[in-house]
Amino acid sequence: MSVLIVGSTALDSIKPATAENPRLLGGSASHAAVAASFFGPVNLVGVVGDDFPKRYVQLYRKHRIDLEGLQVEPGKTFHWSGEYEVNMNNRRTLLTELGVFEKFTPHLPAAYKQSQYVLLANIAPSLQHHVLDQMQRPKFVVADTMDLWLNIALGDLLRLIRRVDGFVLNDGEAHQLTKENNVFAALKKIHKLGPKYVIIKKGSHGSILSAPQGFFICPAYPLHKVVDPTGAGDAFVGGMMGYLAHAKGPPENNLRRAMIHGSVVASFCCEGFGLNRTTRTKRADIDRRVKELERLTEF
Amino acid sequence: MSVLIVGSTALDSIKPATAENPRLLGGSASHAAVAASFFGPVNLVGVVGDDFPKRYVQLYRKHRIDLEGLQVEPGKTFHWSGEYEVNMNNRRTLLTELGVFEKFTPHLPAAYKQSQYVLLANIAPSLQHHVLDQMQRPKFVVADTMDLWLNIALGDLLRLIRRVDGFVLNDGEAHQLTKENNVFAALKKIHKLGPKYVIIKKGSHGSILSAPQGFFICPAYPLHKVVDPTGAGDAFVGGMMGYLAHAKGPPENNLRRAMIHGSVVASFCCEGFGLNRTTRTKRADIDRRVKELERLTEF
Repeated sequence: MSVLIVGSTALDSIKPATAENPRLLGGSASHAAVAASFFGPVNLVGVVGDDFPKRYVQLYRKHRIDLEGLQVEPGKTFHWSGEYEVNMNNRRTLLTELGVFEKFTPHLPAAYKQSQYVLLANIAPSLQHHVLDQMQRPKFVVADTMDLWLNIALGDLLRLIRRVDGFVLNDGEAHQLTKENNVFAALKKIHKLGPKYVIIKKGSHGSILSAPQGFFICPAYPLHKVVDPTGAGDAFVGGMMGYLAHAKGPPENNLRRAMIHGSVVASFCCEGFGLNRTTRTKRADIDRRVKELERLTEF
Repeated sequence: MSVLIVGSTALDSIKPATAENPRLLGGSASHAAVAASFFGPVNLVGVVGDDFPKRYVQLYRKHRIDLEGLQVEPGKTFHWSGEYEVNMNNRRTLLTELGVFEKFTPHLPAAYKQSQYVLLANIAPSLQHHVLDQMQRPKFVVADTMDLWLNIALGDLLRLIRRVDGFVLNDGEAHQLTKENNVFAALKKIHKLGPKYVIIKKGSHGSILSAPQGFFICPAYPLHKVVDPTGAGDAFVGGMMGYLAHAKGPPENNLRRAMIHGSVVASFCCEGFGLNRTTRTKRADIDRRVKELERLTEF
């Protein structure tokens, strides 16, 4: 069954030290949907303006992404511009033009309401709530977020994470939310806020799952060069949810391998600007890196 | 056969936010030797003053550490005092009194010169050279270091690492040495400086081995609370070398499991001030955490 992914669909202008890369396809839902598409069909809900390039619509289609839930509104597509420091860890936003995203309300096509696997990719928690309100009986719902919502919509976010099975955030956000420097102490506090599964992303250091069955230490795939980390976190959760939705058995049995697959898709994401490298990736490339991660971690 | 460990033997005064812990047994060789002792006998080479507490000599002995190479000189034992920030990642040196360490020249007892496994724990590279000059045909030599030597004795250090099988440093030092932000790019450059095996320590994020057989991503054991990370890096290499020296087969076949064991001993080290927790650890406790790490990383 298709995985449902709701989030932002944007045009990203990324400025590294070398050259500007204007208006690449970006946004949390775009990265997550393409990542999920390697494992099976995807239903996407988002909004774009009437300036949204046709080639990006074609790109979604090429990846078996159903676009019935992609709203096209008069106006401009959400545009984000940012730059990275040399070490690729610190990002600075240069410009945010919300455009049609400002008045976005995610409407789910009837068929999407029965989705079993739902990824609430990074958007305002109020919109993530609105999606959940329309769902019938989803089996496994995961929400991602970003520091912005911790700053300006903490109440909404805290109510949201009581409604989801899994909550994903990065180490900086976990610290901001719990005031704990220690990742494992932070995980304990986040469970008390509701979610059964909590995943803390640590960039090139991998990620940690905390589940009723215990922790899982998930490695990042070794990369000698990171070209552009934009969307890597979205690719990670997208790949994870895509894998989960199409794996046999209950999600708790597949979560570890799902994270590994997400981690590998995120590694491809980092190797090109925007979705450039990810969209040139084949399922066989992913499987090869998963096998390699098995070798890199066995002892 | 005993593993030979040469390094500093010191008294550490550690000031966390809570309370001062004066003149605990410390130094790279002390932490490494106690860590190695869980796996078999250890020969220690270091220097202490005539103020060195008898209870610390007894503690070494309790851990089957041979002290024929521990020089006792008139004067004061090397004393270091430092404090940690709340997040336990940043350390600040408050005081360094070299004492008898200032004129230390490591003399190896005759029997030690035939050691097969040698750990040059963190001391001045010139002293590490001096140890190697006295060795006959060691099978596997590993050197550890610290940022201080990169700053004041880089030439000596670069000559040293051409003489060893394995070189261990932390991520900050790897960046300082190679100017590379990316760990895997740094590893590549460090191999070109000589060593066949390079290990980069990343604290709570674990460590990475780069070997002719490929990388190994070694996890850190999950700790909810770090009491005092002083000596954790020394415990890691000490545990690793102790395990290697007593494992069957060639070192290249045992290095991954050796790192895992080192990582576990380092986790105990972090759970108490100085060596307080490590010395209360039993081999069975270590084996239990190793098994747990197997479960925490399998997918």
